Amino acid sequence: MKNLKIEIAPSILSADFSRLAEEVKTVEAAGADLLHLDVMDGHFVPNLTFGPQVVASLRPHTELPFDVHLMIEDPDRYLDEFARAGADWISVHAEACPHLHRTISRIKELGKKAGVALNPATPLSAIEWLLTDLDFVLVMSVNPGFGGQKFISFAVEKIKVLKTMIQDRGLAVKIQVDGGINPQTAPLVVAAGAEILVAGSAVFGKESYSEAIKALKEASKIAPKDLK
Amino acid sequence: MKNLKIEIAPSILSADFSRLAEEVKTVEAAGADLLHLDVMDGHFVPNLTFGPQVVASLRPHTELPFDVHLMIEDPDRYLDEFARAGADWISVHAEACPHLHRTISRIKELGKKAGVALNPATPLSAIEWLLTDLDFVLVMSVNPGFGGQKFISFAVEKIKVLKTMIQDRGLAVKIQVDGGINPQTAPLVVAAGAEILVAGSAVFGKESYSEAIKALKEASKIAPKDLK
Amino acid sequence: MKNLKIEIAPSILSADFSRLAEEVKTVEAAGADLLHLDVMDGHFVPNLTFGPQVVASLRPHTELPFDVHLMIEDPDRYLDEFARAGADWISVHAEACPHLHRTISRIKELGKKAGVALNPATPLSAIEWLLTDLDFVLVMSVNPGFGGQKFISFAVEKIKVLKTMIQDRGLAVKIQVDGGINPQTAPLVVAAGAEILVAGSAVFGKESYSEAIKALKEASKIAPKDLK
Amino acid sequence: MKNLKIEIAPSILSADFSRLAEEVKTVEAAGADLLHLDVMDGHFVPNLTFGPQVVASLRPHTELPFDVHLMIEDPDRYLDEFARAGADWISVHAEACPHLHRTISRIKELGKKAGVALNPATPLSAIEWLLTDLDFVLVMSVNPGFGGQKFISFAVEKIKVLKTMIQDRGLAVKIQVDGGINPQTAPLVVAAGAEILVAGSAVFGKESYSEAIKALKEASKIAPKDLK
Amino acid sequence: MKNLKIEIAPSILSADFSRLAEEVKTVEAAGADLLHLDVMDGHFVPNLTFGPQVVASLRPHTELPFDVHLMIEDPDRYLDEFARAGADWISVHAEACPHLHRTISRIKELGKKAGVALNPATPLSAIEWLLTDLDFVLVMSVNPGFGGQKFISFAVEKIKVLKTMIQDRGLAVKIQVDGGINPQTAPLVVAAGAEILVAGSAVFGKESYSEAIKALKEASKIAPKDLK
Amino acid sequence: MKNLKIEIAPSILSADFSRLAEEVKTVEAAGADLLHLDVMDGHFVPNLTFGPQVVASLRPHTELPFDVHLMIEDPDRYLDEFARAGADWISVHAEACPHLHRTISRIKELGKKAGVALNPATPLSAIEWLLTDLDFVLVMSVNPGFGGQKFISFAVEKIKVLKTMIQDRGLAVKIQVDGGINPQTAPLVVAAGAEILVAGSAVFGKESYSEAIKALKEASKIAPKDLK
Repeated sequence: MKNLKIEIAPSILSADFSRLAEEVKTVEAAGADLLHLDVMDGHFVPNLTFGPQVVASLRPHTELPFDVHLMIEDPDRYLDEFARAGADWISVHAEACPHLHRTISRIKELGKKAGVALNPATPLSAIEWLLTDLDFVLVMSVNPGFGGQKFISFAVEKIKVLKTMIQDRGLAVKIQVDGGINPQTAPLVVAAGAEILVAGSAVFGKESYSEAIKALKEASKIAPKDLK
Repeated sequence: MKNLKIEIAPSILSADFSRLAEEVKTVEAAGADLLHLDVMDGHFVPNLTFGPQVVASLRPHTELPFDVHLMIEDPDRYLDEFARAGADWISVHAEACPHLHRTISRIKELGKKAGVALNPATPLSAIEWLLTDLDFVLVMSVNPGFGGQKFISFAVEKIKVLKTMIQDRGLAVKIQVDGGINPQTAPLVVAAGAEILVAGSAVFGKESYSEAIKALKEASKIAPKDLK
Repeated sequence: MKNLKIEIAPSILSADFSRLAEEVKTVEAAGADLLHLDVMDGHFVPNLTFGPQVVASLRPHTELPFDVHLMIEDPDRYLDEFARAGADWISVHAEACPHLHRTISRIKELGKKAGVALNPATPLSAIEWLLTDLDFVLVMSVNPGFGGQKFISFAVEKIKVLKTMIQDRGLAVKIQVDGGINPQTAPLVVAAGAEILVAGSAVFGKESYSEAIKALKEASKIAPKDLK
Repeated sequence: MKNLKIEIAPSILSADFSRLAEEVKTVEAAGADLLHLDVMDGHFVPNLTFGPQVVASLRPHTELPFDVHLMIEDPDRYLDEFARAGADWISVHAEACPHLHRTISRIKELGKKAGVALNPATPLSAIEWLLTDLDFVLVMSVNPGFGGQKFISFAVEKIKVLKTMIQDRGLAVKIQVDGGINPQTAPLVVAAGAEILVAGSAVFGKESYSEAIKALKEASKIAPKDLK
Repeated sequence: MKNLKIEIAPSILSADFSRLAEEVKTVEAAGADLLHLDVMDGHFVPNLTFGPQVVASLRPHTELPFDVHLMIEDPDRYLDEFARAGADWISVHAEACPHLHRTISRIKELGKKAGVALNPATPLSAIEWLLTDLDFVLVMSVNPGFGGQKFISFAVEKIKVLKTMIQDRGLAVKIQVDGGINPQTAPLVVAAGAEILVAGSAVFGKESYSEAIKALKEASKIAPKDLK
Repeated sequence: MKNLKIEIAPSILSADFSRLAEEVKTVEAAGADLLHLDVMDGHFVPNLTFGPQVVASLRPHTELPFDVHLMIEDPDRYLDEFARAGADWISVHAEACPHLHRTISRIKELGKKAGVALNPATPLSAIEWLLTDLDFVLVMSVNPGFGGQKFISFAVEKIKVLKTMIQDRGLAVKIQVDGGINPQTAPLVVAAGAEILVAGSAVFGKESYSEAIKALKEASKIAPKDLK
């Protein structure tokens, strides 16, 4: 696992929404690998953030792949719209998709990388049949809805079990983790098998985005100590 | 009606979302009276725009009153949040509020100006009992959801009837109009009784916001010609 | 209007739920005419009170007619159940019933008196075609959901207009009013045309239910003074 | 009104669903003017009938215009599909459409005749602003959901008032009526202003469709007697 | 497994809806074992097909058992109706039934064979406790909603695991499979443990239903080759 | 397991709602350990029982811990209210909570014991990640909604598997069982690992509550015989 490239996906949920182009350019220059875009509809989660028009407005300002995390009910209605807006990766929540295979298939038809996000309590059985079809799984280590929450420690074990599922089947599905990621928690999730770290306040909440990203990448290389 | 002050409320729906602070400052300097903020949840209307965090991010950058237009289902859940985010005016849709009096009362308890927005087909009877309690009524002259739509001409007559209702009761409720407002339609709605003109592409779609606003204000002073 | 019999319908929403049989017997002995039962489901209104089993448990303890006010979504599913539980009058909310004529027809098929409840902001046009089929209209003078709220004064005018509608058509539909009724507001609504007064805290909140009911009946006989 | 052409629209809700092509050909030969297709989703109304595929399957078998009556929630999702299936007229329910103007505009963009259906209790104010944009209004004289129901007599008065609204504005909007239409009720609704009569059991429930349609057309010519 | 009788259940979703009686009689004569009836409500799935009245209209025309597959939200409301319409087998979707045991129990009380349908991504844990109470499990090998879709190959493995669950408990629960079944895929699912094959276009899309059914039965006997 | 203290939680669903204070005092004196309060909203389950005001009205009359079982949709909206009303234990249904970890965390923040209730068909995987955070799991041995239903026997095995999960992780999570519990079924569920027995008709349906509770406690001590 030591040669694994860890990617950092800063979440604009913690950025300054009044000057997003600038924030995004800064974070790109600072070494971000992906831009995580937290779309919330105020129904699936108790917060309303932004939609396709905000995503599209950022597209001209960066080369970063757009990793759109749809925390919305019935996402099928908006997949095409987000694809048009510039999404490169799209994840939907298993809890919001009774026809999860159809939703994922549509994302792939649109030529985008397809992922399933799992709430903290959601079992991995939610994706057991679909795993082969996925590009990534997003393990939530907080309850989706707000930035700045505390890391839920059982997510580490969940990532481990998922990593084993992926390896046992010889797949290349990536594990993304979102919630409470910082230099303390990063080594734990990376050791467990995560390859993409979403970081909100741990990047946009810091003075220097570049040092913040470097700190996360450095932390990802060290052997984990106990979280507590 | 000639001494009436007409207020222009540019809608950020047509602004560049990647640099909102700049857009907002420019439009304030250009003579805007209010900033119209189109909140959509992807459920009440088929578009998802932005929520309280975007509103709050703009609050430090302008003195303009924030006129938050909630195109969302069950808005009661978010009134406090938008008040905290800096809203000065809040309107909700009659079609989304089975307990409209409660919703309006809550907006007023929060110390904000309270309005009801009416879809094009919605009858004025929807607000007949509530009119006394309102600060403003938002007459939609397009179907809410997207910028850049064509003005629905029967809105002019609807504004006239509403104006008469307001005057007959000796009230000071203001009429706001939203949708397809430009220098051609502005004189019509102003002559009919509108005092606050929401303008999206007619301001943010123009090279010079200041000339665009001036054009709307000038147009509002002239006698209306037939729209067709 | 002077010979009109005014009926008092104490609402158990303000009674002691731990000993309802006793409360109900006391209020019957105190001169109540109807027992008002506020059924709330936590969905149509932001409170959950009680359902058919509570109603049925009270049936053996009183001869009072049961006036069941359904503040629930999709009430059609529960009409038969409340009829079996002992309801004599059943009202449903216009705002909750897209097929209001069907709902009312079912209540009448069940042999019960049928009413439509109107939220404060709801126009009277909601019942204009149905009026002939109704036994009563419940004019809400507070927003449904909780006891102890302040009377909304425009309800007086609404009752007057409704009374005129009823008289113009030569109908015998009764007007019931619910919300903030006490000896100060009773004369106003009675003068406007209400015949059945729902009273919660003005009865169950008083030491002597019998004096409270007498006070409401006395107040109903006097000419109204201005509310403010 | 005497020169008015009355059109009969047999509703396949009362036809034999096992051999619809045959039923439809027979009813066309029998003199039907339109084919009324009752689409129900089991959500807006308590019955589930059929969808676009049934409509499309009938298209090759008749020249009759297809008059598709959508008794479904959120009909916007299916308008294009029904247009493709061969609908010529499409009506949606006011009670199901918070954005009624948008829905009607889409039907017209699809090149179809657009109508609004009104449940028995729904006030005419629901269409007062939209009337100019409509091709027809469908006045329900039973509660939608099932065939064979009894005519609701206040629909006659409702048609009269609607007819006056249409004439006062100099419009050519047609009035369609659906529910309990037979040779006894036809003269009443025609005298009131209806021009298109939907008939289910009064056509498909009869031995001879041709005599049944003739009977309805004949009845439409005579002066109305009181219904009761 | 070699003596297993494989049953073919042609799905009328691919039949000609304009002459269903004829289609059904032909398919019965052609050797069908069950008639699969795809009920869709336009809410649980993005298509609306037909309801109880279509089912009932076919009952007099065939002796085939009716296998009603309910792709609808909240199916409990319609179970009695479909039983009355002539259903012999009824399946509901696990994803649509929070109270799945109650729903299945009601189907059995109605004297019908009870099944649970599982969407492609739905884990088998959804039925692990209920398996003993079921007559059959319907494994979806396409996403429900439309005919003519491509077989999802991981369904083969899912059927195998389910078959093992059933055998380990010594149960006689049958496995039905629906989606993309044709002479190429039939051997795979039969070898995996399926006993009832739903076939739409593979029967109704062919010139000769009898040869199509024969082809499926023949194919079911041969040893599977790899699908890819 | 022999030293395990078994607690009896009489459910007021089977009590006389007209005199709850008396019922509750009697059952406390009779040896009850907890009071089980079945809150139903008529949406998650097909029955509407009672809400926070009934709970609060009982609080002064007993020292028994209140075990509030929320059979409602979107329980997050009411957690604070039930905490204020006097709840000591609160359980929510996994099937009603897409963000189950958030819901449970809120109950614990309120200082209450937190549990998850599982419908008969719901797999234990629904709580596998959350188990560490729970005070108890409520295994439903009937479908929630009504008292007096027959015990579902596979609940015994489900309790056993859950007990093993709990012990394997070295946790102290308690297992509560609700539905059809009586002196015949009690030994089975206790032997399987249940420690809290909810009993409705087996207590409130008996002449002597004290003998009924004693009978349940006695039965809990004996070795189970086969249920059938």
